[in-house]
Amino acid sequence: MVAILKPYKLVSREFHPHDTVIDVRGKKIGGRHFALIAGPCSIETEDQVMTAARAVKSAGGSMLRGGAFKPRSSPYAFQGLGLDGLKMMAAARDETGLPIVTELLDPRDLEGLLAYADVVQIGARNMQNFQLLSEVGRCAKPVLLKRGLSATIEEWLMAAEYILKEGNREVILCERGIRTFETATRNTFDVSAVPVVQLACHLPVIVDPSHATGRRDLVLPLSLAGIAAGANGVLVEMHPNPELALCDGPQSLSPVAFAEYSGRARELVEWTGKEIS
Amino acid sequence: MVAILKPYKLVSREFHPHDTVIDVRGKKIGGRHFALIAGPCSIETEDQVMTAARAVKSAGGSMLRGGAFKPRSSPYAFQGLGLDGLKMMAAARDETGLPIVTELLDPRDLEGLLAYADVVQIGARNMQNFQLLSEVGRCAKPVLLKRGLSATIEEWLMAAEYILKEGNREVILCERGIRTFETATRNTFDVSAVPVVQLACHLPVIVDPSHATGRRDLVLPLSLAGIAAGANGVLVEMHPNPELALCDGPQSLSPVAFAEYSGRARELVEWTGKEIS
Amino acid sequence: MVAILKPYKLVSREFHPHDTVIDVRGKKIGGRHFALIAGPCSIETEDQVMTAARAVKSAGGSMLRGGAFKPRSSPYAFQGLGLDGLKMMAAARDETGLPIVTELLDPRDLEGLLAYADVVQIGARNMQNFQLLSEVGRCAKPVLLKRGLSATIEEWLMAAEYILKEGNREVILCERGIRTFETATRNTFDVSAVPVVQLACHLPVIVDPSHATGRRDLVLPLSLAGIAAGANGVLVEMHPNPELALCDGPQSLSPVAFAEYSGRARELVEWTGKEIS
Amino acid sequence: MVAILKPYKLVSREFHPHDTVIDVRGKKIGGRHFALIAGPCSIETEDQVMTAARAVKSAGGSMLRGGAFKPRSSPYAFQGLGLDGLKMMAAARDETGLPIVTELLDPRDLEGLLAYADVVQIGARNMQNFQLLSEVGRCAKPVLLKRGLSATIEEWLMAAEYILKEGNREVILCERGIRTFETATRNTFDVSAVPVVQLACHLPVIVDPSHATGRRDLVLPLSLAGIAAGANGVLVEMHPNPELALCDGPQSLSPVAFAEYSGRARELVEWTGKEIS
Repeated sequence: MVAILKPYKLVSREFHPHDTVIDVRGKKIGGRHFALIAGPCSIETEDQVMTAARAVKSAGGSMLRGGAFKPRSSPYAFQGLGLDGLKMMAAARDETGLPIVTELLDPRDLEGLLAYADVVQIGARNMQNFQLLSEVGRCAKPVLLKRGLSATIEEWLMAAEYILKEGNREVILCERGIRTFETATRNTFDVSAVPVVQLACHLPVIVDPSHATGRRDLVLPLSLAGIAAGANGVLVEMHPNPELALCDGPQSLSPVAFAEYSGRARELVEWTGKEIS
Repeated sequence: MVAILKPYKLVSREFHPHDTVIDVRGKKIGGRHFALIAGPCSIETEDQVMTAARAVKSAGGSMLRGGAFKPRSSPYAFQGLGLDGLKMMAAARDETGLPIVTELLDPRDLEGLLAYADVVQIGARNMQNFQLLSEVGRCAKPVLLKRGLSATIEEWLMAAEYILKEGNREVILCERGIRTFETATRNTFDVSAVPVVQLACHLPVIVDPSHATGRRDLVLPLSLAGIAAGANGVLVEMHPNPELALCDGPQSLSPVAFAEYSGRARELVEWTGKEIS
Repeated sequence: MVAILKPYKLVSREFHPHDTVIDVRGKKIGGRHFALIAGPCSIETEDQVMTAARAVKSAGGSMLRGGAFKPRSSPYAFQGLGLDGLKMMAAARDETGLPIVTELLDPRDLEGLLAYADVVQIGARNMQNFQLLSEVGRCAKPVLLKRGLSATIEEWLMAAEYILKEGNREVILCERGIRTFETATRNTFDVSAVPVVQLACHLPVIVDPSHATGRRDLVLPLSLAGIAAGANGVLVEMHPNPELALCDGPQSLSPVAFAEYSGRARELVEWTGKEIS
Repeated sequence: MVAILKPYKLVSREFHPHDTVIDVRGKKIGGRHFALIAGPCSIETEDQVMTAARAVKSAGGSMLRGGAFKPRSSPYAFQGLGLDGLKMMAAARDETGLPIVTELLDPRDLEGLLAYADVVQIGARNMQNFQLLSEVGRCAKPVLLKRGLSATIEEWLMAAEYILKEGNREVILCERGIRTFETATRNTFDVSAVPVVQLACHLPVIVDPSHATGRRDLVLPLSLAGIAAGANGVLVEMHPNPELALCDGPQSLSPVAFAEYSGRARELVEWTGKEIS
């Protein structure tokens, strides 16, 4: 059970009873507004990101995700294109109008990133990088805060508290799987986090079944699970050519698969009484 | 990832590609047939079980669950009414027509239990009690096999294989939460188990959000999550008076709450293209 | 933290402040008495068990372990020789004088097993098989109770309480690894369980690094860790020919390796102020 | 099992077969050199740190630990004294000669911290803060790298690889407990990590039973467990007045308790054939 005396304040419903709704270039998320965020794990080329953005747009997606700064377990793995990648995303936004969600790893990159990003993502590994949290707490863009792989829900809300405490009230929480003994999925998708957070906290909460499972064939059923549980959005990996992806290919949907996915997801969003932005 | 060379045979789709549909006194489960199973954790009195059965029936439930033999962590806790409890359930079945699901703990109780039960439940703690599995593998009633608290999906399917190997092909798998570090819920509801099992195995798979979370306020959203992910049924704790329950009160729905729950769950079952038995 | 109001009674130091010392055919365990228990995972042949017993004896071991009834995740794996295996162990005891430790899986086998066994082992998978616990609670032989793979220390002590409650006060607790996300070892050896149990409980507690790790190369360092932490004994897998073992070969020591192991372990036991029985 | 094709290079014994020995102002760690590192969780006052340092020195400790920059789950908790704290530690070093171990949280603090610290600690929450790892990989001081709460041993070695890849070959690995379901201890002390690392990697590995357990009464037995398993050092929390500590009081030893602790630990270090620096 969540402790009776909660250690968080600004993120709690006691402090702010109503759902926070965040507006990202006209796309809303929170309350009855649902966001379908999709795109490749890493930005690789201009063509790749533009093709992905068009596929997101044509399937009715709300925002474009993509990584320019990549946290990788191995120092020998592809680390991302950096600012060049962000510029490619901005070009895709110019054409499609989709807002950009992208990850920040280092406080020293924040200024450069803010020139392009619409939503600043803090990744799972940095959920308790308190310096980074405080830094984005002082910026004027919404923050998408992923849950750490072994973070309790309470610790996750405390991490959001770090951001709100600095003044930034626009935080989107994202469940992306926790670490357990089960090996059939890369992580264990903790769908309970959606209602647990919503009962305690006014911020929007979304789900990322791509990272939670690492398996393309589970992305649709688990997105539906998250939507049915009340999620305010989904974050899904989609790549123009998953077989050639530099990162996370096995969990990425192709544009064709994403169009089907989007159709089914939208129907369930409507069933829940929410609307896709 | 599930190993490429699967260690199970009879439970796998390679052996039996089509969904197994199980008929329990006319109530079907599996494939497009969905079962809503509800009732108290423990059978306590004749009145209690009759009131519960009527509430399940009037809300459109498919089967009645209730424990007569109770596995309890403490030797000092209520251990169940045994055969007397089963007789009370049978009386409730006589009136309502609802088939009975009840747990077997000891191979020596099987004969007595089979005189009353329609579905024999093997609990989470006994998922690898291989003697018990083999025993129910030789009986003529369907078996509801709960996943162990720390069992991988592969081990769970191997436990089902023990049953099928003895000749009983009617096994219902039930996800009921796994043990992790998270403390906001009693266990972590592993909703991914639903599609993972369905991709690999032909047996029906249901979810038990009551035991998975231990929290009444999470039973509806997580049941919806399970249904959306494709579950063939739900198993829910309902008690005529949750505040007075001898066991698991905090996670039990009242009859009124259950009626509302049932309505919402049924709508989503229909949305998925299944029908409630 | 262990709850302030402990749910167990008979196993607690509040009820029985002094260390329980158990005498098994003259070999003592508990308090300052240390037992070195070794032998093969499964009894396979007369030769195998006799060779193993001689190796245990000549290296100064205290008792012989070996499985005649084997709990296996797969119904297609070797399930043990049953009573024939017990007879082979008894012959080895006749020659070497080593008491026999062997596992009980089914309450219906207890009578047959008691004709041969000196210590009745309850395996990890059966730690919460409460019928089996009550059954061995009524027998006159000591019980070696392994910790379940996902059992908290409190649940483990409650399982011991089930045994003591029936009258049998001779229980040896055995830590054998818990299930976590780490994959470098088969399970995670929770060495903290040794002092945690000893602070709260008067029963002897031993460690089984063979099952905890699944790796032969870790058996010595982790046995030393357990001994240094205060364990009252170790349980180690040793096979005359690990490469040919039907079960758990990769974690079994050869007789030569066991002799070296035993020498080093004995030195540390003495350093801790205990003596090997 | 650790993967056969290891993803790390510079940290592996294949690349560098012999134990790395690190010299910190004349105190050695690695190979047969053992370091006893102790001190308060947080630097609070000049008196506190000086008293602690004298107690470490008089009990034969090797280095002084203390936090000036504190990572705290709550933004409302004490965040450390920053550079002022480091100056207090430096004064304590001037008097006692003990080298200083202290944590870095933010790459922007590195230059300031290097003016005082002898060993730069990277905490558990930052184990995969790859920017921070690369940064300390370019500095000329040894790094103490704590294992993340849910990091596999392989991921931990990959994190060390990030540091070595930048040129800094002096990394001390520190096991400090992993997150599991067990609640008797704050984390689960994974003592297996010591031999698993030593078999695969040439870097020194130490243990921190204070953070692993959160319980003062477990610090000695688990330190002995770590030493017996082959650890190259221990990191222990000691506070002049644990009851008044601003942080981690319940797991801190008093100076008197530390002197007893040190005596017993030293005896076992000698038994293992190592010598305390």
